[in-house]
Amino acid sequence: MPLYQCLVPAGSLNHELRADLAEAITTVHTSVTGAPRGFVNVVFTEYEPSAFFTAGKPNAVSVIGGTIRSGRDRAARAEQLTRLSEAWTEITGQEAQSLLVGLTEVDPTSIMEAGLIMPAPGEEAAWMERHRHALGDLLSAE
Amino acid sequence: MPLYQCLVPAGSLNHELRADLAEAITTVHTSVTGAPRGFVNVVFTEYEPSAFFTAGKPNAVSVIGGTIRSGRDRAARAEQLTRLSEAWTEITGQEAQSLLVGLTEVDPTSIMEAGLIMPAPGEEAAWMERHRHALGDLLSAE
Amino acid sequence: MPLYQCLVPAGSLNHELRADLAEAITTVHTSVTGAPRGFVNVVFTEYEPSAFFTAGKPNAVSVIGGTIRSGRDRAARAEQLTRLSEAWTEITGQEAQSLLVGLTEVDPTSIMEAGLIMPAPGEEAAWMERHRHALGDLLSAE
Repeated sequence: MPLYQCLVPAGSLNHELRADLAEAITTVHTSVTGAPRGFVNVVFTEYEPSAFFTAGKPNAVSVIGGTIRSGRDRAARAEQLTRLSEAWTEITGQEAQSLLVGLTEVDPTSIMEAGLIMPAPGEEAAWMERHRHALGDLLSAE
Repeated sequence: MPLYQCLVPAGSLNHELRADLAEAITTVHTSVTGAPRGFVNVVFTEYEPSAFFTAGKPNAVSVIGGTIRSGRDRAARAEQLTRLSEAWTEITGQEAQSLLVGLTEVDPTSIMEAGLIMPAPGEEAAWMERHRHALGDLLSAE
Repeated sequence: MPLYQCLVPAGSLNHELRADLAEAITTVHTSVTGAPRGFVNVVFTEYEPSAFFTAGKPNAVSVIGGTIRSGRDRAARAEQLTRLSEAWTEITGQEAQSLLVGLTEVDPTSIMEAGLIMPAPGEEAAWMERHRHALGDLLSAE
């Protein structure tokens, strides 16, 4: 948590571009939300180039679907969306017109990571303290 | 926005069927919601035929997962589900028993398309006016 | 409904492991929620091994993304998450550190299965009665 699923046309991004995008998405997420880097997951999956349609016509669009903690205000989400889009277009050279970005908010108590259920809003500090040992790798990731 | 992700058994739909389904899904969405065609995205991804299970047993099910604006009432969503299912079974010849349709509602202010963050409910007209130029292609798609 | 989408590294699970996981996920879901087995769907999709990143670095994580009826309390969701994680690690031999589990709650009236729209909370018994014939296979699955 979060998990950013990037659905892209097959063959459109080589490993180096994916790595650069993953780094940029991680940086945007942590700087807007304050979350530790070790919690940020990014995965790329592909669709066949002829399998995407807009207005019923074939199109080549990349989709960033982020699943994030619920409760962030509109301004924070707007900043996230804007910076994700800027990073994507800058790194890939693609136009913003061919990018769709969505953030789905989920209750953190419906998420388990590394065997631990995420804390509800307000419980974070106590939860971090209680699970400091188990969280070692996640908290120290750089 | 919306985005309809269709997850289907590998090899079950050729390009012509996909194009027909994309056209039908676009028509259902725009006629139920009044949204412009240029906003409707449909993508097809595949799973290996042996990778789907119902009740723990192998099964061949197609899934339409729609991500739509929140705030539509139960009757509108029922009409959308019914017409999506009818279109799918008519075009593919598959039975409704092998189709799963779900609509996930998201806050439009968590979505960015063509570099623009979607408006909150009630702000649509002013938003359209303000971004008329940038929205050109989306609004004029036929 | 529910639908559990498992996104895993390509080649990490053979058919036998997938079948065992599907059976285990079905058992966890039905025993925690009381839902009939015939409603539980599990699908496996894959990503290229180098396509997943945590903290910006390549990683190999399996993701269980469950879409379930909204309205289950925190304790029920915690039990589901815990038992899903235990089943996954036991069957695959993978560590909990490489597993991410999330439950997305959706309004049942936004879901259609076998041509029927799911009932709202409180309407289940009347709905089962009214659609007993159409639901035959779903209710009798073992």
